[in-house]
Amino acid sequence: VPAASAIEQRIRGAFDRQGFMATIGASLVAVREGEVEIALPFSAALTQQHGFIHGGAVTSIVDSACGFAALSMMPAEAAVLTIEFKVNLLSPAKGERLRAVGRVVRPGRTLMVCIGNVFTEEARRSKQVALMTTTMMVVDAAKGLRD
Amino acid sequence: VPAASAIEQRIRGAFDRQGFMATIGASLVAVREGEVEIALPFSAALTQQHGFIHGGAVTSIVDSACGFAALSMMPAEAAVLTIEFKVNLLSPAKGERLRAVGRVVRPGRTLMVCIGNVFTEEARRSKQVALMTTTMMVVDAAKGLRD
Amino acid sequence: VPAASAIEQRIRGAFDRQGFMATIGASLVAVREGEVEIALPFSAALTQQHGFIHGGAVTSIVDSACGFAALSMMPAEAAVLTIEFKVNLLSPAKGERLRAVGRVVRPGRTLMVCIGNVFTEEARRSKQVALMTTTMMVVDAAKGLRD
Amino acid sequence: VPAASAIEQRIRGAFDRQGFMATIGASLVAVREGEVEIALPFSAALTQQHGFIHGGAVTSIVDSACGFAALSMMPAEAAVLTIEFKVNLLSPAKGERLRAVGRVVRPGRTLMVCIGNVFTEEARRSKQVALMTTTMMVVDAAKGLRD
Repeated sequence: VPAASAIEQRIRGAFDRQGFMATIGASLVAVREGEVEIALPFSAALTQQHGFIHGGAVTSIVDSACGFAALSMMPAEAAVLTIEFKVNLLSPAKGERLRAVGRVVRPGRTLMVCIGNVFTEEARRSKQVALMTTTMMVVDAAKGLRD
Repeated sequence: VPAASAIEQRIRGAFDRQGFMATIGASLVAVREGEVEIALPFSAALTQQHGFIHGGAVTSIVDSACGFAALSMMPAEAAVLTIEFKVNLLSPAKGERLRAVGRVVRPGRTLMVCIGNVFTEEARRSKQVALMTTTMMVVDAAKGLRD
Repeated sequence: VPAASAIEQRIRGAFDRQGFMATIGASLVAVREGEVEIALPFSAALTQQHGFIHGGAVTSIVDSACGFAALSMMPAEAAVLTIEFKVNLLSPAKGERLRAVGRVVRPGRTLMVCIGNVFTEEARRSKQVALMTTTMMVVDAAKGLRD
Repeated sequence: VPAASAIEQRIRGAFDRQGFMATIGASLVAVREGEVEIALPFSAALTQQHGFIHGGAVTSIVDSACGFAALSMMPAEAAVLTIEFKVNLLSPAKGERLRAVGRVVRPGRTLMVCIGNVFTEEARRSKQVALMTTTMMVVDAAKGLRD
């Protein structure tokens, strides 16, 4: 396993290559081995028809958080691919900003399973707005991404 | 059930109020009762680290397509809320544009279940890139959105 | 909220009316408000083709555990219905017995979201074999079960 | 790809080794390359507390149907493992018997994605009661089943 700082450097590099994270205004908040945190400030550019943050934007940050959490546990020559995820939307995603935490719960050689939790921070209260479970695949970056 | 044109007007109004659809560059392609289609042209602003369209962007258009498909079968005073979805990512989302088709498979009074399929169009070939199943809730627009 | 012993009595009554729990040999181990535990001893009658406990049997006990966890937080006149679940199978379900723990993470008036974890106990080691997320619906027992 | 009769022989062999299918009374109805059908007659031994067939029993037959559909497209030395599934329960599973149809929608070298539909037959009417999406893994039967 690479040193902690090498892990953060690797994840930050991958995050910075995700054009979509910049488009929605997300930022990488914390990287630990097997756990990654991403923040997303509220913006009218992210809303659905009732003025809450769109479930797709919520999903985007927690998918990235889980994917990077998985990548943080993979060998240096590996890349990560999302195979599937399921999201339960628990409460409307409103408030000043969202915080998504992705965590590996089963680090396998080929597949990793992660749990992602998304919270909103509003008036000093934190509330969970979404729950994700997801399967990430370890792929050989040199060989290409999918059969 | 309202007339077909009234349905389209209603869905188009809801789509236009989703700031996030404009942000990612999505457009409403077709509205039928119980089936809605949304298109998303490829853009570097939507990518993940390997240059494909981010799974969160894929999810955003198919979540909206399913939600609007459900809304198209609801009474005029109702609003729609996504309760949960699951997405299987079948192939990398590359190509010129994506097309998401959401369809109601169980239209209930309180809950509607939808299937969403996302295709990429590339060099005149269409290929499925994602499969969603989702539960949508019928809520009273006047009473507010969640208990 | 009814007293703790009334909760346990209610859940035990519902468990005993599930013919399927008796068929597979499951037993109700613990009931707390919002959390229920069910055990399932290994049996050749429960296996799939590789000799592990079938994913459907694993799902059965964790679906019941989650449903009863939700029911334990519902008013006395309510019944519980499973709307959907997703299960990630983390490791082969082998060992002497399985233990499923269902827990409510969002207790709503109409819908409750639960997380279920299934563990195997083998040679004094406990290992997680499955992870469920699920939506349970609160229905009026008198009115009937689904629209 | 092996001949059709070889496929059926292989799937029937795997079905017969699933002790759990015999326990619940399920039978293998049809095998085609990439599509398998399993039937389950109603029995009080399969019920939940409202007298319907337990969601776990419904899941058991559609998980097996999907797994065998995937296995029917795999090379002879491969075995199949369920990685994850999600089930939407659309209507109470009552009636004389259930019929689960599993179908491969993405046959990959390492992973296969399937859709499963479960129907009830009652008074000459067929009604869908459940919808599954699932990921199946192709594993080398000789090497063992999971990393």
